[in-house]
Parts: sequence; C-alpha cells; structure tokens
Amino acid sequence: MDLKPMLKPESVAIIGASRDQDKVGHVILQNYINAGYSGRLYAVNKAADEIMGIKAYPSVLKIRDRIDLAVIAIPAQFVPEAMEECGRAKVKSVIVVSGGFAEIGNKDLQDRLVGIAEKYSMPTLGPNCLGVMDPRSRVDTLFLPTYKLSRPQVGGVSFVCQSGAVGSTVLDLISGEGFGLSKFISYGNAAHIDEVDILNYLMEDDETKVIILYVEGIKRGREFIEVAKRITRKKPVVVLKAGRTVAGQAAAHSHTAALAGNYEAHEAIFRQYGFTIAEDLSDLLNFAKILDSEPFPKGNSIGVVTNGGGAGVLVADAIGMSESLVLGGFSNKNTEFLRKSMPPLVNIRNPLDLAGDADGARYDEALQVMGSDDNIDMVLAIILFQTPGTDSKTAAKAISFKEKMSKPMIVLSVGSEYTEMHKIMMESAGLPVYSSPSAAVRSLAELLKYANYRNKK
Amino acid sequence: MDLKPMLKPESVAIIGASRDQDKVGHVILQNYINAGYSGRLYAVNKAADEIMGIKAYPSVLKIRDRIDLAVIAIPAQFVPEAMEECGRAKVKSVIVVSGGFAEIGNKDLQDRLVGIAEKYSMPTLGPNCLGVMDPRSRVDTLFLPTYKLSRPQVGGVSFVCQSGAVGSTVLDLISGEGFGLSKFISYGNAAHIDEVDILNYLMEDDETKVIILYVEGIKRGREFIEVAKRITRKKPVVVLKAGRTVAGQAAAHSHTAALAGNYEAHEAIFRQYGFTIAEDLSDLLNFAKILDSEPFPKGNSIGVVTNGGGAGVLVADAIGMSESLVLGGFSNKNTEFLRKSMPPLVNIRNPLDLAGDADGARYDEALQVMGSDDNIDMVLAIILFQTPGTDSKTAAKAISFKEKMSKPMIVLSVGSEYTEMHKIMMESAGLPVYSSPSAAVRSLAELLKYANYRNKK
Repeated sequence: MDLKPMLKPESVAIIGASRDQDKVGHVILQNYINAGYSGRLYAVNKAADEIMGIKAYPSVLKIRDRIDLAVIAIPAQFVPEAMEECGRAKVKSVIVVSGGFAEIGNKDLQDRLVGIAEKYSMPTLGPNCLGVMDPRSRVDTLFLPTYKLSRPQVGGVSFVCQSGAVGSTVLDLISGEGFGLSKFISYGNAAHIDEVDILNYLMEDDETKVIILYVEGIKRGREFIEVAKRITRKKPVVVLKAGRTVAGQAAAHSHTAALAGNYEAHEAIFRQYGFTIAEDLSDLLNFAKILDSEPFPKGNSIGVVTNGGGAGVLVADAIGMSESLVLGGFSNKNTEFLRKSMPPLVNIRNPLDLAGDADGARYDEALQVMGSDDNIDMVLAIILFQTPGTDSKTAAKAISFKEKMSKPMIVLSVGSEYTEMHKIMMESAGLPVYSSPSAAVRSLAELLKYANYRNKK
Repeated sequence: MDLKPMLKPESVAIIGASRDQDKVGHVILQNYINAGYSGRLYAVNKAADEIMGIKAYPSVLKIRDRIDLAVIAIPAQFVPEAMEECGRAKVKSVIVVSGGFAEIGNKDLQDRLVGIAEKYSMPTLGPNCLGVMDPRSRVDTLFLPTYKLSRPQVGGVSFVCQSGAVGSTVLDLISGEGFGLSKFISYGNAAHIDEVDILNYLMEDDETKVIILYVEGIKRGREFIEVAKRITRKKPVVVLKAGRTVAGQAAAHSHTAALAGNYEAHEAIFRQYGFTIAEDLSDLLNFAKILDSEPFPKGNSIGVVTNGGGAGVLVADAIGMSESLVLGGFSNKNTEFLRKSMPPLVNIRNPLDLAGDADGARYDEALQVMGSDDNIDMVLAIILFQTPGTDSKTAAKAISFKEKMSKPMIVLSVGSEYTEMHKIMMESAGLPVYSSPSAAVRSLAELLKYANYRNKK
C-alpha cells in the first residue's frame, strides 16, 4: 500500500476540525498550523466557514482541490459517512483518529470502514490511533499539544506503534534523546493498513535507517514473515511485542482488539529473522540509538575506559553476564604505552580505571589505545561528570575521538542535570550515551547480534 | 564502632585544605562552607594561616579544641603521619579521602593506617573514599562541587557505598527524586570501618528508615551474617553486590582491593535474611523509594488504572511475568458502580483503561474503587501526561487520594519535561513515581517480598 500521500501530503483536510479547544479536531488543526505545514490545509466542519484562519467546508466533497490526506476526528458513528464522502471525493488516504470500534466490541462498524477503504482503494490508517508524524514534511496528526509532548528532531529512526499511548510516551522520550525521527506511524486497530503494510513501505524508504516497532497482535502471519525475511537484510528493526502473558493478552484484546497470540511463536520468528528484541520501553530507545549511529563491530571484544572504578566493575559484571561479549586485553605495545603515559595510581588493565581525577587529556591517551588496539572491537567510555576532572572539554575529546574512529563507540554517563547537558552534547554529535551499565552493555550486545545476522550469508 | 562523631561532629579539621582550587582539600573545605555547617571548622595546611576565611594550622596538634572529625586529603605517603598526629590530638574519628593504598598494591601503607586507628581507638573511614554526607548535620566531605553533583534533600534513606564513583552518581540521581537522604557513607577500601560497622550503626539510627548498600567485597562474613539477621527485622536494606562475575571480581579487586567472592553464596545470604536485591543502579532508587514511603500490602493483588491502553498491556505483561503478583478482579458492587460512572468506551476490567481523554474526575472514581475493593491490595495508577485530559489537577487528585488510602500506591508516568514536573510534584507529596512498566511492577513485587519477610515469625 502506498503511504506516501499520507506521509508526504501536498493537501490535507481535517474532518472534525473545531474551534472548541477541548476537541481533538481543534488540537490536530492547531498542531498542523504550529508545525509549519507548507501544503494546502482545509478544515471540514458543518457549522463554520473558517477555523483559526483556515477555510472550513461542510463536507470534503465541497473542497475544490485534490486531497492527499483526510484526517477524521469525529464520533465513531459518523465516520463511515465521512469516509464514503472521502471516497467519492477521490481522497488519496485517510487516517481515522476516532475510537469506538472493534476495541469496544463494535466490530461491524469497523468492518464498514474497511469496506469503504477497499471499495475506493483508499489506504486507511486506524481507527483508534494517533496517526502519523513526519518532521521532514511537517505532517503531524497527533492530537496532543506540544507543551505536553515534545516533538523529536529530524533523523533516521522510524517508529511504528500500534498503541497511541505507548506511541506518545516513547515519542516524548525520543525528544529528549540526541537521535532524530524519520516517521511516526500509530496504527491503532489496524483495520485496513497494518504492520505488514507499514514495514513494506518503510523497508523501501530512504529516509528510514532504523525501525522501532511496538506491536500487540500480528494478524497476517505469513505476510509478516515475508516482510520480516527481507526487511532486516536492509535495516534493523527493534521490536517490543506486548501481550507476552495471558494477562497482557487479555489487556491487549480490550485495547486494540488485537489477538496477541503465543509470544514464544512470535519471539522465534523475530529471532530467526534478525529482529532486535526489546523487553521494555527503554530498550526501544537504547537499542535504536546504537543501531542508528554505530558501524558494525569486527568482533565481540569490548574495551572499557572509566573515571569511576565502581562503574567499571558494574560494566565488567554486565559484560561477564552477557552471552556474547568479552573484555579484550591490550597488545604489549599498548600496555607499555599506557604504563608510561598514565599516572602510577592507574592499573593497566581492562576496564582501564583512569581514577577520579582523570581529565580530557588522560581520556585522550586511553581512547587512542582503545581505537588502535586490534584486540578491541568496540569501545565503551564511562565518563562520570560528577568528578573534578571532567567537564565539557572531556565530552569534546570523546566526540573528536569518535569522529576519527571506525569502531563502534558509546558512552556511559549517569547523573542528573550537569550530566544530562553533556549527554545531549555528545548525542547530538552522533555519540550514543547510556545511563545504566546494563543498558550500555546490552545495547553493545544487540549491535553485535545484528551485525552477525547481517554478515551471515 | 561509634560513627556519631563522624556524622554529627561538633568540630571538623580538614587536613590538606588548600587555596588551590584544583586540590581535593579546597573543594572539601568549600563544600563545608557552602553547606552551612554550623560546627567549628578548622583548616590544616603547613603553608597558610587562613584559607577562605577559615583559620589554618600547620598540624592538627596545634588546634586548641577537641576535634570530632578529621578529614584527610593529602598524598598517600603523608597520611600515616597525619593520622598519628590525629591520634595524639585525641581526634574522635578520621576520614581518609586519599587514594593510593591497597587498591594499587600498597597494602603495607594501608596496614599502617589500620595500626594507628586501632592504637588510638579512632574509627577511620577509607582510605580511597568520598567520606560522608548528612543533610541534617550538614556534614559533607565530598570533594565534588555542587554544580556537578546536586545534593539530595533531607529524608529517611541512608546510602552506604563502597565505591566513590558509584556513590556520587547515585547521589546525583537521588537528588532528582522526591525522596530524601538520611546519610551517605562512602567507605572505599574498608581498611578499618567496614560495611558491618556501618550497618550496625544505621540499624540503631532513628533517622534511617531504609538502607541502600553498594558493596564490592564482604570481608567479615560471619559478622555480616550477624548484622544481616537483625537489621532487616528493623528496616529494609536494598543491596547491589558488584563482582558477580569473574570479570567483575577482577575489576573490583583492582578498584577497592575487595575480594568479591562467590556471588551465589552472597546472594543466598541476602535472600535468606530478607535483603532486597538490586540488579542495577536504577533498582537501588526504584526499590528504596517504595520501601521508604509505602505501607506493607495485605496481599499480592494489583489494581491498575490507566489513561493509556498500551501502557496497561505492558503492565499486565510485567505482572504476568512476575512470580508473585496477580491482577485482582473487582467486586460485583464495584463493577456495577464503574459501569454506571464510566463512559461507554471504558471496558470494566483490570487494568482499567480510562481512555485517552480521562481527566482527574474519572481517575478519582476509578481510584475510589481501587481503594475500597477488598480484592485489590496495591494500586498502580498509570498517568500519562501527554494526553489531553491530564494535567496538574490529575496529579493533585492522585496525591489527595493517596493521602486517604491505607494500601500501597504508586504511579507510572513516562515522558520528558512536562511529565518530570508532575513526577517531582507527586513524589514530594510521598507518592512514588516510576518511569517504566517493569520498574514499577518489580518495585511492587519487592515491597511484597519484604512485607512477607517481616510478617514471617
């Protein structure tokens, strides 16, 4: 299904646009205006001629323009009629934001939508969804005000999310990260367009480098496997599958009418086809950012440099507990070099504990060794910004080092405001920063796993 | 060992206090002044009469006052002489901040410190440590400036930490939480005072309600078991044991000269004596705050209310995956009440999905049911602040509801700035807030586990 009219529309009609600030249609129109959407924008409202400066029409049929996307935000029972009008007006794609369909038992009403979508070959997203966001085209159908939900910057990660609530919270979290968004697609009940259609589209989308997928139920198993086989050969997909337990499956069914199915079966498919499996929301972000920015490692050996011994111990433990990673040794030459260049307090071993007074220069020497040593495949630099020697110069050293290096490199920095400031600085320069030892190490392990999958014949 | 002179000193001497801003002794003196320490403060420096307005002496022996605490921050080789002088001056307790002892192989030098401490019966913390912080007495020996490391507010959680780096990062994280600190004790190489002494002291400390313990090696196994048996009968102890793997054990040895020992043996002891076991740094905070604020639950049944269906599914999954928790059903009476009071879109089940437009009033009705229903032992309120209906009024409803309730109640709110603002608001009112479904559910499970331990004969 062609999702381009939905994601890159030249003209948009908001059906249910309203002057009433409490209405979903008001917020959607407002967000389109705020986002600076440059296409042709129309409001559809039976009772107004104009809303917030945008011309309003009683029906989409009255608009004398070709409409690429109609966003429908009206009570469920009126949606079929509005869709029928969209079909007759040759609207190219539809997003039904409204809830009140299969997720509360109104399967018939939902089937009518699907019938209309098919009759007019009109790709329809939803119902019961947030719709789409594309920071490049400035399309933003989210009915959530920007002061509550910060919008992420432009980037290479596309986020496909069955749940609106999970979608909005994760989007809000992404806005606090250094990586950017390519597309956000919330598809709700998946009545017409489903995850298979979306993955098929994003597989060929050059703006999408990494895909995050939150899914409750997969309806078309065979088609899913077809796209799964092909998509991870081109780009990584990080998946969080909800409904892993009986309790979760029942909740999912009442949420998006999804049949969550047997988790083990899904997990086996994900593993077989090289998906990166997330266990929690934070994994989605942690795994996406390393896959977005880092090259494939040549092997499984990690070099760790730290200005905090305890953090080094926790990272060593996390590496020891991982199934795939090891702590590499240094070459004799590098061991000699470090013995000479490091102060006597520093034990020359991996993790390399530079001590609490380490500054940018000491990091620089240590990172040079990590970068040049053939025994080290990936670098994990722990930079704790609470200590006296570290500041933005240390972060700058890490960034400039990273720019010269061909190995994967990430940073672990744990803390509050001062640390967060440096995290944003480093991530904006393409250096992923993690806030827990296990998250950092698990992300390296997932990068290696995906690299191994891609390197297999 | 009596740690009161160290934690509540009426007089403090900083040995190694300096005008040079890059010296540890400078930062420590500066922090004492900034913290508003109200006791008698002295600087010891051979080359100055006065530092930052504080009178300086060439030796602690020259101070004509009884010194409760001497903080030593000078190069390792000069520490024994300074300690000897402290002993002769009848200083009541010593903190050796300096590193350069057993952790880099200088075991003999460290043994000399222990000899002097024992000769003069002078409780000595360190060496190679950050020392202590007590927001009540405003003692703060940390050599980390406050702009880099925010200091937590006053509260009931004491944090005992072998590693300085882990200590400072976790303290920095605690400063961003709504709960407060009773004591911070970083004990480094544990040459004289060790975790056994500290736990024995905190067990009897009325200001301490919950203990967080980060430990690399436990030296006195039998004594540790003795205090372990008794302490968790009085207050919860959340423990993160580093050196769980061979890799971590080697790193720990090079860090604090700790012999990390067999992790399984330690874990068995922790479990047997009702410790709350953390797997990662974030667990320390997540588990501490629920144990700090919540009453013991009567049973294992969770009631979940949410304004985001997907978040409800993830929580249901996390409960389904836990070994101990279940989703409770509602009584017939409450089911009837909810059918009448909730809009038709709302499925009356647990998790109770109030839908994306839920406001404070709808939360209030749902929470009343959760609070009154005997089938529900603990309440998890998911409040996603990205949705249109939620704002500070919703947070206020949750707070006022919590104040009336005798069951444990926590909140799950995931997001960035707008969410964080409400998190602080709720946590300051004693309502713990979590930022991931698994963290929230695991924390409820740990609260139940500790309650069960305490309720056993």
